[in-house]
Amino acid sequence: MRIGGIEAGGTKIICGIGNEKGQIEKKISFPTESPEIVFEKINQFFAGEQLDALGVGTFGPIDVNRKSATYGYITSTPKPGWKNIDVLGELKKQFNMPIGFDTDVNGAALAEATWGSAQGLNSCVYYTVGTGVGVGVFVEGSLVHGLLHPEAGHIPVKRHPADSFEGFCPYHKDCLEGVAAGPAIEKRFGVKGHELGKEHEAWQLEAYYLGQALVSTILLLSPERIILGGGVMHQEQLFPLIREQVRSTLNGYVQHQMILEQIDQYIIPPALGDDAGLCGALALGLQEYKAGR
Amino acid sequence: MRIGGIEAGGTKIICGIGNEKGQIEKKISFPTESPEIVFEKINQFFAGEQLDALGVGTFGPIDVNRKSATYGYITSTPKPGWKNIDVLGELKKQFNMPIGFDTDVNGAALAEATWGSAQGLNSCVYYTVGTGVGVGVFVEGSLVHGLLHPEAGHIPVKRHPADSFEGFCPYHKDCLEGVAAGPAIEKRFGVKGHELGKEHEAWQLEAYYLGQALVSTILLLSPERIILGGGVMHQEQLFPLIREQVRSTLNGYVQHQMILEQIDQYIIPPALGDDAGLCGALALGLQEYKAGR
Repeated sequence: MRIGGIEAGGTKIICGIGNEKGQIEKKISFPTESPEIVFEKINQFFAGEQLDALGVGTFGPIDVNRKSATYGYITSTPKPGWKNIDVLGELKKQFNMPIGFDTDVNGAALAEATWGSAQGLNSCVYYTVGTGVGVGVFVEGSLVHGLLHPEAGHIPVKRHPADSFEGFCPYHKDCLEGVAAGPAIEKRFGVKGHELGKEHEAWQLEAYYLGQALVSTILLLSPERIILGGGVMHQEQLFPLIREQVRSTLNGYVQHQMILEQIDQYIIPPALGDDAGLCGALALGLQEYKAGR
Repeated sequence: MRIGGIEAGGTKIICGIGNEKGQIEKKISFPTESPEIVFEKINQFFAGEQLDALGVGTFGPIDVNRKSATYGYITSTPKPGWKNIDVLGELKKQFNMPIGFDTDVNGAALAEATWGSAQGLNSCVYYTVGTGVGVGVFVEGSLVHGLLHPEAGHIPVKRHPADSFEGFCPYHKDCLEGVAAGPAIEKRFGVKGHELGKEHEAWQLEAYYLGQALVSTILLLSPERIILGGGVMHQEQLFPLIREQVRSTLNGYVQHQMILEQIDQYIIPPALGDDAGLCGALALGLQEYKAGR
């Protein structure tokens, strides 16, 4: 099979072609300019390619309700020019094939369950921690949509007693994203995270907030794997700190060996690394193809 | 159809017989004594009845993993005599029919999605707030299990600045259950909740904590309905307070009319009322029957 993938982020778009094993044959990236320019570049990249399916994993919020009149739209984004844009409709004009459409993070969760760290499992949650915090949720073999789609970057968190930073989320100030995304580290300490030493107190704070969010995730959803990706998670010293935070907060309540004994195999980095997003788009295309839509 | 249902709570067991419409024909209840006595009474109640299926919604933690050697067991409960009890195995000795088995709260969520407040929807979350806080989760048409099953009564919550009560959860002190279950109200104010006036500050505190948990639930799972049952939720003045807490905390972030305009139809009491638990057991039996197991 040959599957086209489009990973649409707020700052750049990655287009690629891969197969049903998640292997990428070629890819390009370009900035997220106006929709006109972006769709033109997408059409150019895929022009003349023989494809079986296409998948799109995009920034949001988006409409993923197949019964909705605006299914396939990017909806209420603050990004200039991208509000109420019919992404799926534009692609359907050019590409006569199954086209999968979901959030970038739902795509990444599906890719990890299809080819990566959660392969063969019935559930996983994918967190990306970078300029924002995004969450993809795969439960009982399905990506979660519901009313809209998960937006767990914005869940409330208890404040660390030693943290006086007010938080930077324009909606909630000190929600998870407001205190734990990359900009929170930079605003709190005056330099970017990767300029801080591995022993800096920033990482303990970061683990406090992310660990707390994972505890809520475990208690609400009981996922079989939790995968943490994104730029901030390149700080590998965070993983043991987060696992310890989760264990100490749960305090033995969830009696399962993955948490009690094997937490280093439970809270893990993405197996697909920096290709998780593009693989997510491929996985969405593959899923749509298999569903016969 | 005739379906048997067993709602097994920590203090009492309810057995009943109903049909595929969730209509209850007859029921009895008795205290949760030793497993020997309980199984004997269950056998007596159903003896000679013509049934198509049986469903069990039980207190936990339980093993709901069909591939596990202890599938159908109540596992690590502190309740004397009930640790590592093979509930499903005991029932299978007596009843040769499909037997559904899940948590009482997952059963209640399924019943509300089958016959109640979430009828026809693809997702709902059921909270029961009483001597503890239990949560059942139905997502994309399936009850959520994953690693174990949801235990969202214990998620971390931000403390209300005016609340000095330390919390009573033996594992986490001031998790949701520790500050918002019935005993927290009693320990904080010295009398049971139903003895406090409807204007008492207790209800504002209660709404602060429950509203916060619902915000996390909405952001992580995006359920199409949230149903709040249990003894504490008989205090109907809580519903508008909780809805307001959810709306003000989300602060317009989730752009969906169910939250922005129709939140009084979104966060609601169980349609099945005090029969939600028994109907849950019937729904679990019906689900097992339909799955042809």
